Amino acid sequence: MAEKQIEEKKTALPKKSDFSEWYNEILMIGEIMDVRYPVKGLYVWFPFGFEVRKRTYAIIRELLDKDHQETLFPLLIPETEFMKEAEHIKGFEDEVYWVTRGGQNELDIPLALRPTSETAIYPMYKVWVRSHADLPIKIYQIVNTFRYETKHTRPLIRLREITSFKEAHTVHATWDEASEQVKEATRIYQELYRRLAIPTIVSKRPDWDKFPGADYTMAVDTLMPDNKTLQIGTAHHLGNNFAKTFDIMYEDINGEQQYAQQTCYGISERCIAALISVHGDDKGLIFPPEVAPIQVVVIPILFGKSDEITQACRAVAESLRAGGIRVVLDESDERPGAKYYKWEMKGVPLRVEIGPRDLKNNVATVARRDSGSKETIPLDHIAEEIKKRFQDIHGNLFKKAEQSLKERIFDCTTIEEVRDKIPEGIARIPWCGERECGLSMENAVGAGILGIPEGEPGRGAGICPVCKRETQHMAIMAKTY
Amino acid sequence: MAEKQIEEKKTALPKKSDFSEWYNEILMIGEIMDVRYPVKGLYVWFPFGFEVRKRTYAIIRELLDKDHQETLFPLLIPETEFMKEAEHIKGFEDEVYWVTRGGQNELDIPLALRPTSETAIYPMYKVWVRSHADLPIKIYQIVNTFRYETKHTRPLIRLREITSFKEAHTVHATWDEASEQVKEATRIYQELYRRLAIPTIVSKRPDWDKFPGADYTMAVDTLMPDNKTLQIGTAHHLGNNFAKTFDIMYEDINGEQQYAQQTCYGISERCIAALISVHGDDKGLIFPPEVAPIQVVVIPILFGKSDEITQACRAVAESLRAGGIRVVLDESDERPGAKYYKWEMKGVPLRVEIGPRDLKNNVATVARRDSGSKETIPLDHIAEEIKKRFQDIHGNLFKKAEQSLKERIFDCTTIEEVRDKIPEGIARIPWCGERECGLSMENAVGAGILGIPEGEPGRGAGICPVCKRETQHMAIMAKTY
Repeated sequence: MAEKQIEEKKTALPKKSDFSEWYNEILMIGEIMDVRYPVKGLYVWFPFGFEVRKRTYAIIRELLDKDHQETLFPLLIPETEFMKEAEHIKGFEDEVYWVTRGGQNELDIPLALRPTSETAIYPMYKVWVRSHADLPIKIYQIVNTFRYETKHTRPLIRLREITSFKEAHTVHATWDEASEQVKEATRIYQELYRRLAIPTIVSKRPDWDKFPGADYTMAVDTLMPDNKTLQIGTAHHLGNNFAKTFDIMYEDINGEQQYAQQTCYGISERCIAALISVHGDDKGLIFPPEVAPIQVVVIPILFGKSDEITQACRAVAESLRAGGIRVVLDESDERPGAKYYKWEMKGVPLRVEIGPRDLKNNVATVARRDSGSKETIPLDHIAEEIKKRFQDIHGNLFKKAEQSLKERIFDCTTIEEVRDKIPEGIARIPWCGERECGLSMENAVGAGILGIPEGEPGRGAGICPVCKRETQHMAIMAKTY
Repeated sequence: MAEKQIEEKKTALPKKSDFSEWYNEILMIGEIMDVRYPVKGLYVWFPFGFEVRKRTYAIIRELLDKDHQETLFPLLIPETEFMKEAEHIKGFEDEVYWVTRGGQNELDIPLALRPTSETAIYPMYKVWVRSHADLPIKIYQIVNTFRYETKHTRPLIRLREITSFKEAHTVHATWDEASEQVKEATRIYQELYRRLAIPTIVSKRPDWDKFPGADYTMAVDTLMPDNKTLQIGTAHHLGNNFAKTFDIMYEDINGEQQYAQQTCYGISERCIAALISVHGDDKGLIFPPEVAPIQVVVIPILFGKSDEITQACRAVAESLRAGGIRVVLDESDERPGAKYYKWEMKGVPLRVEIGPRDLKNNVATVARRDSGSKETIPLDHIAEEIKKRFQDIHGNLFKKAEQSLKERIFDCTTIEEVRDKIPEGIARIPWCGERECGLSMENAVGAGILGIPEGEPGRGAGICPVCKRETQHMAIMAKTY
C-alpha cells in the first residue's frame, strides 16, 4: 500500500550523522509514520510501523501481565476532578486540551483530554479501596493521551496525541512498599529495553524536575545519535499526596483508617523512537528480530530461468514459516540489488539468498543486516540455524549500542569540562544534591541535570563544583529531548 | 481487586426476565464495567471485563488480518476537514464533541473528537492513492470514538466514549468491487458472531436509515432478551461520494483519472453487550470457552483434611494449564456452594470437582455452566476431554441462541399483526421497498424497519400492506436499541 507514493518520494536517505534529517526521512521511507496529517503534532501510523508498535507493546504486556491487570478508563476527565490536585494542575495547565462543546451545546463542565490519568483513575480508587486486604492494586492501561505542545513537535517523540501511552497505577499500604514498586517498575523497564537491545541509564530526577504531585521521580533515559538524551520511561512515588486529594483510604489491620500510598509509571511510543534511532544506520532501519515485522527475506538469485532455485526458495520460505519465523519471499522482477536495498531499508534482520552454486552445495547464503556479514548455512535445519542467528543479532545489537553509550559518558570534575563534553554526550560530575548548586550548574552549562544515577555509576568521591563540599554522589548532565 | 467492594454491594442478581435491571447489575457483579465514573455515558473496564474484550477483539483481528492491515489515525479532526462532506456533517453535527481550548489558548481551528474516522483517513487517502496498482487498500483501526449522546446512555450500548470501535476503510477501483467488499464485510462479521455463538440477521437498511454519505448500508443485528434488536455491525458502500469530497483519484489502466470507490465497516463494544446479554442467565454470565477469561475452575471437595484430594486438584490444574487451558484452582476456605455461586456468576464454562469418591475412581466430576449437566471424566487425558467439551458448549450455546431467535421471528401480512407481534420480537412483512410505504408502516406500528434481509429470508411473495402492490421483498421490523 502506498508504496508507489513512497517510491516517488524516495531520495537517498540522509546520512545518520545528520540525525535530525535522517530521523524525519526514515519514518516516511521506512513506512513507520506518515507526517502529512493536517494538524501539527499528529501523525498516522503506517501498517508497517504499526506492526513494530504491536510487537513492542506485546513485550510490555508480557512483562506487566505477570502481576498487573490491564484495564481501561475514560479519556475525558471533568474539570472538577482534574482541578483537585494543586501541584498536578500547575504542572499541566498549559498543556491540556479542553472539550467545551457537545454538538451545538456548551458543556456545563469542560472535559479535559487526559494528559495522564491520575485524575481519571483515583476517583475510582476512592470507591475500590476499602481494606488492607484490597492492597496492593496494580493496574495498567495502554491509551492515547494529549498534550497541547507549543514547542517544536516531532513524530514519536514530542506529540500532541501520544497514541501509545502505557501507564500503570498502583496502590499500597505503606510508603516503603510503594518505594519498592518504583524500583520494580524501573527493573521492568530495563528488561523491556534489554529485549529491544537498547541500553539505558536509570536516575533519580532532581526535585525541580519530578512529576507534578510526586514525592520523587525515577527516570529511564537513553542516549540518541545526536548526543541528546531521550527520556523513555518514568516511575513516580506519589506518597499519599493524591490519596489525600481523592480521599483514598484503607482500614489497616488495627481497624484504623489510613491514607493509601501510590505509584504510577509510564512509557510512551518514545520507546519506538529509541528503537529506530539507536539501531538504524545509513542504509535504513535495523530491528532486533523479536520486534521485526519481517524477520527473514528470501531472495532467489536467478541467472536466466531456474525453476530449481525458485522451488528451493519457496521450500525454504515454507520451512521457515513452519518454524514460526516471519518471512517474505521476494519473487518480484526487480534486480537483486534493488531488493537488497528495499529490505535493508525495512530493517529485516536476515536475508537468505539461494543461487546456482548454493543449490549445488545444498546451502543458502545468509546475510546479516546488523553486521553485513555473510555465511552459508546448510538447507537442512535452516530454521533452527536462523533462530540461533537471531540471538546473535540481538546480542550484537545490544553490545554495539552499549559500547556506543559508554563511549559517550564522560567523567568530569569541573563545570568547564562538563560544558566541553555535553556536545559529545553525557557528563558525570560530583553534585552535593542541593537544589541551589544543581540549578547553578544547569545555568552555567546550559544543559539539564538528569539526576543521580542508580547503583554504582552514581557513586564517586568528589567535590561539588559549586559549593565545594565533598559528596558521595554523581549527577549526570546532558542536553535532552 | 475491588472484590471486597463488590461483595458488599452484592444483592441477588435480578432475574434475566427483568432484562434492564439484570443487565445493569451483571456488569457490576460480574466485574465487566464499573458504572460509577463521574461523567454520564463514560464507564470503566474492570480487568475481568477487559479480558473478555481482549479475547473478543483478538478474534476480530485474526479475521481481518488475513487481508487487511492494522493502522492508527489521530483522534482529532480539524473542523475544516470535518465539515467537507455535507451529508456526513448533517448526520453528526448534533453528536460531535469539540476541543476548543489548548492550555490557556483558544484554538484557531476547533478539533472534533472523531465520531468515526472518514474525515481523518480520507485526506491521507488523497495522497496515498495514485494508480490502479495501489488498489485495493484495506486498512482498519481499533480506537476510541465519541458521541455526545443526549439520550439515555447505557454501558457498552449507548456511550459517549466508545472505547473499542473497530473501523475498516477500503478503497477500490470500481463500484462493483466495493459492493463485493461490503458483502465480504458482513460475511466476516457473521463469522465473528458465530465464534461468539451469537446468531445474527443481515439486512439492507432502508434509505432513510443509512450511514450519512453512503450509497447504502448493510447491517448486522441480533435480538436481545427484551425482544429489541441491537445493531452490532454495519458495512457501508460509500460509492465515490467521499472520493469526490476529498479528491481521491487514481489513474486507470488507460491512463485516465477516476474517482475511487470506497467502503467502510465498523463494530463496537456492542459485540460484548450482545455476548453478555444473549448467553447470560439468572445465575450470571455465561461465556463461550474461546472468550472466557477463565475456562475451567477446579474445586477440591474436602471432607476434613485431605492432602490427596488437594494434590490431585493441583495436578489436574497443572495438566490443564499445560494443555493451554485457562484454569483457576480455588483452594480458598469458602464452602463449595459459595464457590459454585461465584464462578457461575463469572461465566466459567466448566467446573471440575474432585472429592473422595472421584479420587478413588481416578475421575473428576465435571459440571457445565451452559446446561448444568454433570458427568465424570477419567483423570488421564482430562485436558483433551475438556477441550472436546468446549466444542460441545460452543455448539450448544449457538444452537440455543439460534433457536431463541427463530422463535421470536414472526411472519405477518398486516400492519395489525406486526403491531401485535413486535413486543415479542421481530416481524417479517412484505414491503414494496418504497420510502413512502416504509415510513407509513413505521408510523403505524411505532417501530422501525430494520431493512430487507439478505438471502432467502428476505424473499417471499406477498402484498405490501400500504400500497397493496405485489412484491418479492420482505421487510423486518422491530423495536431497536
